[in-house]
Amino acid sequence: MIDFCLKPLDSRSRFSLIANHRCHCEKGHDGKCSEYPYLQDLEKTYEKVAQKIKRDSTNTTGAAWASKDAGPNRILRWAMLLSDEELRGYGLDMSQLRPGIVAKLREKAAPYEDCMQVAMKLAWLVYQMPDAPTPPDSIRRYLEGVFRGMIPGSTKCEVCLLPISFNLFSTAQRGKAPIETCHKNPRVHNADNVGFAHRECNIAQGAKTLDDFYAWVEGILVRARRL
Amino acid sequence: MIDFCLKPLDSRSRFSLIANHRCHCEKGHDGKCSEYPYLQDLEKTYEKVAQKIKRDSTNTTGAAWASKDAGPNRILRWAMLLSDEELRGYGLDMSQLRPGIVAKLREKAAPYEDCMQVAMKLAWLVYQMPDAPTPPDSIRRYLEGVFRGMIPGSTKCEVCLLPISFNLFSTAQRGKAPIETCHKNPRVHNADNVGFAHRECNIAQGAKTLDDFYAWVEGILVRARRL
Repeated sequence: MIDFCLKPLDSRSRFSLIANHRCHCEKGHDGKCSEYPYLQDLEKTYEKVAQKIKRDSTNTTGAAWASKDAGPNRILRWAMLLSDEELRGYGLDMSQLRPGIVAKLREKAAPYEDCMQVAMKLAWLVYQMPDAPTPPDSIRRYLEGVFRGMIPGSTKCEVCLLPISFNLFSTAQRGKAPIETCHKNPRVHNADNVGFAHRECNIAQGAKTLDDFYAWVEGILVRARRL
Repeated sequence: MIDFCLKPLDSRSRFSLIANHRCHCEKGHDGKCSEYPYLQDLEKTYEKVAQKIKRDSTNTTGAAWASKDAGPNRILRWAMLLSDEELRGYGLDMSQLRPGIVAKLREKAAPYEDCMQVAMKLAWLVYQMPDAPTPPDSIRRYLEGVFRGMIPGSTKCEVCLLPISFNLFSTAQRGKAPIETCHKNPRVHNADNVGFAHRECNIAQGAKTLDDFYAWVEGILVRARRL
């Protein structure tokens, strides 16, 4: 396991006090501090993939709340750990949002360090997708130090368990990427619980845990007399 | 099987020439002509259910195309059988819509008589839902004449095959009813192919035929070593 530098970094977010970004280079590293040192190669070669990893790991999702009274579309997940009163101090009035929206946002709450581990996990999985670029040695060593050895081409859709190709990232249409970040338990945001899924697989899983989804479809197949 | 009156009815739609509404009372009936005589009781007691049956049977759906350049949200399904040129005559310029929208609309095309049969099938299924109101004898006889004898409480979700309660119609929230009209084959709109499904079941089925959905989840369960 890697020890991180964890030196505080500057932030330009309006939640800068909440944000509390920290360096995740290895402790005692050379050169500049960086929050996502393992994304430096993807940022150059596949910038959108790097951005997706950062966004999905740190922000709440926003698709369903694009209406006027739904509040900001995406919020830092660890901001959702603060009280309504603390959030008012940052200019976000949760009482102005519909109760259903508040519940959805609060459900996405996760500590900063969990989000950082999620980003590392997603990067580790991306580099093991079929057709993925080969990571620079330093990044491979870093990610293997955090998790386990990488097996090229081994990343599968968490739902349907078929290989999920890196090339699918580049076929996004109107904000609908055919690859989505998914959660084995939709209410838990940490490295163990996240992975990638085909969009249609993630949609089919819905709000269920993966175990509940499998049990649900098993029941369906029994009733359809296919089992 | 019932013979219908089929006398043309007036229409106030801007597609009135296309609409070509016809009486679906039994041939030789007493009293006024009516396009949906079997909905007259639901129209009084559960107006929204009657409206949903009419809307889902005759109109294309609109959810995904609520944007400015997506054109009218709902269109008569049989209008989608007309050529682009004919539609221009009715003030609808298909060439102004994005190709993806046009494809989705065209895919929903169905002849008027098929839509009428779909409405009858949905009414027949509604009256057989657990907790459904009892139909007046005249309506029961009409619908049983078109299809088969009704078995109270026998209507099931077409996807998960569990009973689907009439009471779910009244728990719609923000346009998201927990019951949806579904298609065993999403590209075929006729009485044989339609039914009701729980919203989450319909979403899980997605664009697949029901057979393909079952085969798909079966493959998943095999890979998950649950079969």
